Amino acid sequence: MEPSDQVDYISGRTRLFAIVGHPIAQVRSPEMITAELRARGHDAILVPLHILPEDFDACLPQLMRVRNLGGLVFTIPYKLRACALADELGAQARVVGAINALANGDDGRWRGDIFDGLGCVEAFRRRGLAFAGKRVMLLGAGGAGSAIAAAIGSERPASLRIFDIDGERARLLAETVARANPRVVVAAASPTIRDVDILVNASPVGMLDDARLPLPISDLSRELVVFDAIVKPERTPLITLAEQFGCTTVYGREMMRGQIARMVDFFYAV
Amino acid sequence: MEPSDQVDYISGRTRLFAIVGHPIAQVRSPEMITAELRARGHDAILVPLHILPEDFDACLPQLMRVRNLGGLVFTIPYKLRACALADELGAQARVVGAINALANGDDGRWRGDIFDGLGCVEAFRRRGLAFAGKRVMLLGAGGAGSAIAAAIGSERPASLRIFDIDGERARLLAETVARANPRVVVAAASPTIRDVDILVNASPVGMLDDARLPLPISDLSRELVVFDAIVKPERTPLITLAEQFGCTTVYGREMMRGQIARMVDFFYAV
Repeated sequence: MEPSDQVDYISGRTRLFAIVGHPIAQVRSPEMITAELRARGHDAILVPLHILPEDFDACLPQLMRVRNLGGLVFTIPYKLRACALADELGAQARVVGAINALANGDDGRWRGDIFDGLGCVEAFRRRGLAFAGKRVMLLGAGGAGSAIAAAIGSERPASLRIFDIDGERARLLAETVARANPRVVVAAASPTIRDVDILVNASPVGMLDDARLPLPISDLSRELVVFDAIVKPERTPLITLAEQFGCTTVYGREMMRGQIARMVDFFYAV
Repeated sequence: MEPSDQVDYISGRTRLFAIVGHPIAQVRSPEMITAELRARGHDAILVPLHILPEDFDACLPQLMRVRNLGGLVFTIPYKLRACALADELGAQARVVGAINALANGDDGRWRGDIFDGLGCVEAFRRRGLAFAGKRVMLLGAGGAGSAIAAAIGSERPASLRIFDIDGERARLLAETVARANPRVVVAAASPTIRDVDILVNASPVGMLDDARLPLPISDLSRELVVFDAIVKPERTPLITLAEQFGCTTVYGREMMRGQIARMVDFFYAV
């Protein structure tokens, strides 16, 4: 057999993972999670599965019977619906009410959890930064914001203030996170950097060609840590401003890497 | 993003193919068919799916609803059961009554056919050898033998004699191939090289550590062409003997390569 007759990254023994979404072409998990799996020495791959909304409920339970399937990742529009597929929900998922990963345990049970927020915490940890004892201002209480609020809440910050243009959504998220973390002061609030140690943007403001800032600020203390969950562009208007003032900044891409690391931990831990 | 953060062989745009079997670890299609897909410039991959017999009937129709799934390959024990999944059967499949590939057409219809025998014909073609007008002796009328008989039959050989240790099985296969190819002389027969131009072994005799020959022979004409469908070992006792006598020999691995080429043609033609 000539070497060109075969590739070295897939065989009959390769463990499968898949990301399920609609649409699917834009997802980055296949190349990134597969790289993480390989870097850890696993003979495994993560493939894209484009499943239509009308097929999801019938297809997923059958797909989960494939014996060499180790886990699933869920993206838009399935993070809520996927909860119903889990035999058990992790701590983050119970707060957020959504999952983005399902892991097939050795016992045959499927465990679901959500890793967006844990990825943010992991990104900070890798930088030697902690949320514990800090006063955090979170902008955005949608899907990403909810997961980030849940994850930060469980890190015991001094306080977590949450702003959303939909005030009711911010209030409901604050209540949920407060209930899960009774010792943390959590409240809906106006967007501000006054008495804030860490500013987190989980709103879409600043994405792609959006030149706006997610809150009205013009100058910043260099003590402030600024994180923006947006991946494109890497340097959002908020990050650019923060760097002009000498703030420590954490990028959306770092959250993505942190999330991937925590997801792969999850896939091989259960 | 550092280069090591991602692999270059899978993304959200990659078209999926899969081989379905039980067990699955031993299959070679993932590394070999993926290599063929890549060599032709397709952004595509073939992954292994281990599906249990009790799950097959419910799982496959759902799996076939995955929008970026281009086709399926079937191995033991599913080549017969998979026929029911096809909207249309190809010429080979109609003779053999089994399929090993299903292709998802642009029109949403699934077309099934079997490529073991076509792989044998393709291997001969690549060597500049033809079955047309030749007298062929085929040993073995099981799964591989049936597919090979169907493929050779449609190449207009002068005659096709078929031997199997189960004489009834040989007779039934001869009848089926004769019906599909009225102008070819097809018959069950004793194993012989007398008046034979091409000897084809599709029986398991000579596989792995089996030192036997699939028919009682001690000397051969160097005009005889000898093909052995066995892949392991590459040089079976029959091939070794044939080479000692200066015969032209064709290897099982060549059939495998020929089959892969024809399957990929099929996946991208429909």
